Amino acid sequence: MVTKEQLKEKLKLYVILDRKLGNGVPLKQQAQLAIAGGATAIQLRDKEMKGRDYYQAALVIRDVCRENNVLFIVNDRLDVALAAEADGVHLGQEDLPLHAAKKLAPPGFIIGISAVNVEQARLAEKGGADYLGVGDVFGTASKPDAKLTGVDMLKMICQSTSLPCVAIGGINVNNAKIVLDAGAIGIAVISAVVSQKDITGAAKALRELIP
Amino acid sequence: MVTKEQLKEKLKLYVILDRKLGNGVPLKQQAQLAIAGGATAIQLRDKEMKGRDYYQAALVIRDVCRENNVLFIVNDRLDVALAAEADGVHLGQEDLPLHAAKKLAPPGFIIGISAVNVEQARLAEKGGADYLGVGDVFGTASKPDAKLTGVDMLKMICQSTSLPCVAIGGINVNNAKIVLDAGAIGIAVISAVVSQKDITGAAKALRELIP
Repeated sequence: MVTKEQLKEKLKLYVILDRKLGNGVPLKQQAQLAIAGGATAIQLRDKEMKGRDYYQAALVIRDVCRENNVLFIVNDRLDVALAAEADGVHLGQEDLPLHAAKKLAPPGFIIGISAVNVEQARLAEKGGADYLGVGDVFGTASKPDAKLTGVDMLKMICQSTSLPCVAIGGINVNNAKIVLDAGAIGIAVISAVVSQKDITGAAKALRELIP
Repeated sequence: MVTKEQLKEKLKLYVILDRKLGNGVPLKQQAQLAIAGGATAIQLRDKEMKGRDYYQAALVIRDVCRENNVLFIVNDRLDVALAAEADGVHLGQEDLPLHAAKKLAPPGFIIGISAVNVEQARLAEKGGADYLGVGDVFGTASKPDAKLTGVDMLKMICQSTSLPCVAIGGINVNNAKIVLDAGAIGIAVISAVVSQKDITGAAKALRELIP
């Protein structure tokens, strides 16, 4: 069971694994290399994997995370997250609604919610979410069609909620300070870590920017 | 809670809803019309719907089924099935493994497993499945790339297991008797019902063939 203060620590450098953006590096290795560089949370996300493959991948990544005392979150599939005994699930606005997920999640199971405006943040907090993923802040290669949230909206959301906010979308070593100054307690990245030739070094460079 | 004998009765005419094959008829109406014709079970299946839409659709179909005392099964997504309080989930060989699903499912929650050979049937029975979906028996428009299971294999599977077997894949009024004679206790259909102009009439014609 993770306390609220522990959760904030564990959300500082939140690395999302990606089969396609990882330049052929297997998911397990992406996780290991990112953790070696200081990733505090790992998310498994794959919209195309079938349930069985997703579950098998989740088991592997869960073990890597457990060994390293790193938070492990599964994107979208609450059933996979629960069956694989992940620490939590991350749900977008098009995924299972929070109230439905809360019915199935045991106490202590972490639920993160994507929010792009103050109303979504308010509903997520009211509904019992544990953290918010806010963005796409700067625009990102992994979601080319996403509408940008922007730094001003990130700031408004962070100020409007008591939930820890993790900024996501196009964050790198050059702009990480901007989102942290705006109130994010952590940053979530895909390509800025897993697409880099030196995944560990990329994670380390980002981790050093987060107080 | 459905007893084993009740489950056999409820698996006789198992209609799978389909947005694409339904010629524009909304899923709720597909369910209502099929039930009016004697469908004893309804499955919601959609590989493309996002989690939220799938959950919302499941709530609607669940209500239709409950009002009519018809079994309601959700394909693939155990989380959606549980959150929407469906009667059960149907899992293919590429979906969440049975043992993982069993960990999350409450007592009495029905788990159906797809099987195309005796070994898969054996593992499903050993793992605590409640029924088998056997096929593609004859070849079907909804899964054009599926390998045919055939009547001989259906018969072998039915003889090898104590689980009720529902035959699926290209079944219609002309060949339903063949799969029932081979040992299936029920038939699962998509296009033979939901693609027909008279959905109720099509269901009725099939239902009359099943003892």
